[in-house]
Amino acid sequence: MARIVMKFGGTSVADLDRIANAAGRVKRAVEAGDEVAVVVSAMAGVTNQLVGYVDKTSRVYDAREYDAVVASGEQVTAGLMALRLQELGVAARSWHGWQIPIRTNEVHGKARIEEIGTDNLDPRLKSGEVAVIAGFQGVSPRGRITTLGRGGSDTTAVALAAALKADRCDIYTDVDGVYTTDPRIVAKARKLERISHEEMLEMASLGAKVLQTRSVELAMNHGVRLQVLSSFEDKPGTLVVDEEEIVEQQVVSGIAYSRDEAKITLVKVADKPGVAASIFGPLADAAVNVDMIVQSVSSDGQRTDMTFTVAKTDLDRAVKTLEENRAAIEYEQLIADPDVVKISVIGVGMRSHAGVAQTMFRTLAEKGINIQVISTSEIKISTLVGEEYTELAIRALHSAYGLDTAA
Amino acid sequence: MARIVMKFGGTSVADLDRIANAAGRVKRAVEAGDEVAVVVSAMAGVTNQLVGYVDKTSRVYDAREYDAVVASGEQVTAGLMALRLQELGVAARSWHGWQIPIRTNEVHGKARIEEIGTDNLDPRLKSGEVAVIAGFQGVSPRGRITTLGRGGSDTTAVALAAALKADRCDIYTDVDGVYTTDPRIVAKARKLERISHEEMLEMASLGAKVLQTRSVELAMNHGVRLQVLSSFEDKPGTLVVDEEEIVEQQVVSGIAYSRDEAKITLVKVADKPGVAASIFGPLADAAVNVDMIVQSVSSDGQRTDMTFTVAKTDLDRAVKTLEENRAAIEYEQLIADPDVVKISVIGVGMRSHAGVAQTMFRTLAEKGINIQVISTSEIKISTLVGEEYTELAIRALHSAYGLDTAA
Repeated sequence: MARIVMKFGGTSVADLDRIANAAGRVKRAVEAGDEVAVVVSAMAGVTNQLVGYVDKTSRVYDAREYDAVVASGEQVTAGLMALRLQELGVAARSWHGWQIPIRTNEVHGKARIEEIGTDNLDPRLKSGEVAVIAGFQGVSPRGRITTLGRGGSDTTAVALAAALKADRCDIYTDVDGVYTTDPRIVAKARKLERISHEEMLEMASLGAKVLQTRSVELAMNHGVRLQVLSSFEDKPGTLVVDEEEIVEQQVVSGIAYSRDEAKITLVKVADKPGVAASIFGPLADAAVNVDMIVQSVSSDGQRTDMTFTVAKTDLDRAVKTLEENRAAIEYEQLIADPDVVKISVIGVGMRSHAGVAQTMFRTLAEKGINIQVISTSEIKISTLVGEEYTELAIRALHSAYGLDTAA
Repeated sequence: MARIVMKFGGTSVADLDRIANAAGRVKRAVEAGDEVAVVVSAMAGVTNQLVGYVDKTSRVYDAREYDAVVASGEQVTAGLMALRLQELGVAARSWHGWQIPIRTNEVHGKARIEEIGTDNLDPRLKSGEVAVIAGFQGVSPRGRITTLGRGGSDTTAVALAAALKADRCDIYTDVDGVYTTDPRIVAKARKLERISHEEMLEMASLGAKVLQTRSVELAMNHGVRLQVLSSFEDKPGTLVVDEEEIVEQQVVSGIAYSRDEAKITLVKVADKPGVAASIFGPLADAAVNVDMIVQSVSSDGQRTDMTFTVAKTDLDRAVKTLEENRAAIEYEQLIADPDVVKISVIGVGMRSHAGVAQTMFRTLAEKGINIQVISTSEIKISTLVGEEYTELAIRALHSAYGLDTAA
């Protein structure tokens, strides 16, 4: 007997049939003797419809009213899921954020959970009643409904699992687990049985869209064991666990990529103290996040080239900001290049193994792929290459690190 | 400067354009210096869609989950209305039932309001902020969302007006007021400037669908001045007020009719003590409401005929119940007749004027219309006649009581 949180995302509760299917899974868990809390997203299209209503109603963006409107989608699913469970003979009750309560701060639209009360849920779970929780939402100190932003229902599930001291948090989605890389690119990609929180965090932040970064972070900080699995197939998914739980650790666990970045090069900026601040200060003020940064060695000690990446969606704003600040920065030329991809190899094994970076550089060189920017962290090496090399690079690296499935 | 509650029903907030139109009205009231609380219904089709989801999800009817799902429709409208008001430059905030709070009992699906807190709304109204309240809902002592049943948003509006000591409660709808009778039947029907709560209550319970009985009752008990008016036209509607506020009182204010009744006659039941109980007891047990009752004078002192009316929708159940209890009741024959209409003349002036009933009977007789059943109250006379006489009877009575507009 275990206590588990089961989270069903948008595709898993897209319509009444899928809600029924998800309820069937919950029933089986209950019959196996588990205590179950269920977290649900809104039905397909509902959130978009509600957001559309808000957009058409007002140019004034009042995040408090936005939250009050948009949170209703998850509330409907929660009620329907509770009803469906009852229909299947399973005791169930729906819960909105304020009823539990899930207390958040006041940052409407992307609130952070600060505390989850367990006095209401805990005794009911113990009595065998399933708690069906509307994901994505909480209540502010002033009693207003808040929403948690993108991937908010995952965050709800993980935070609940931590608060309820659940043995596991199962994230049901439309993929059956976490793969060594994108199976649409590499047919030999392998589903991972286990992955560490740290690796999952890098995978998520680098574009593997299975889980939102924030929920993985939360799981890591609270030691929540996550499982990513399919709501349409009956097989185990991928467990996201503490590093110690992984016995046979690969050096490299996976290869992630992101097409969401763009490269900017400022040619011949003055090589003097304060120049970085003159570039990245205005960008920060314009809410442009800068990711990889490389400053080339100055040949004459006076001028240098500065290359960095920004989100592709921020590229125009970044260029405009830099042009407006041209006089202060003193660069000769600005080159913007959206046709790049960031490819990263990830593995906690890197900490104890040398040569991982070397393998990456050699593999890419052998395929004639030029590396434009490099950045590394303790468990990750990222390179920026031309976008046209995406598939070629990923497939070569997947083989080079021994990740291909046996034929 | 006044404090008013403005209630917009389903047709008045059917879509985003109509919400914008309603918001325009609220803005004008605010600009006139009024303190305004707005009560809104769900957008067109939303409640039906949610009820449909519930019906398809479960045969188990859990009213608590039904309420949690269905109440979301009004919440969406409230948020959108607040946003629209902000867009128009009007300070506004949405409120769900639990936020105010509107405390109800635990009878989910048709809860009764027990108490409305004003600590949240009162200071905000005074500061000029419009409170937009999701109608139809409240919160139970256990912190569950409740709904108030049919016409619930009217009830919300009137109860709020009472709690907030509002000067008036304006009910915006798709008709422009209360008429002396149904204008679809009598072209000369006149819009009433004022009508007393008591009369409105009789009109509502007799089929004039402008206001729900319960909200009128509530308004009467708390002395709330109601106004029924159109959200599509700019003209005053009908004021529903205390009798003393009506200076020029007509003897008859209006003529109502209801096609929702059916007649049952039990021929030759025993004329002995306890026979009424043997008939109406089983009907009550079967949840059949009986309205008009007439017992004919027994010719032989042993057998009598018993005629009464039930809701047309209950007719089959009533007949079945009576047949099952035939042995106990001892009647010779059961005649069921759904083709009847109840026509009522209503007016507080009846209290002080004689001859009102006589005018009714004479008028119907002159048209050759046979009266099947008669029932009276202090301010109302109802007659049951054949359904085919509906228009003829109403038009004749409308003229006879001097209600026709001057040509």
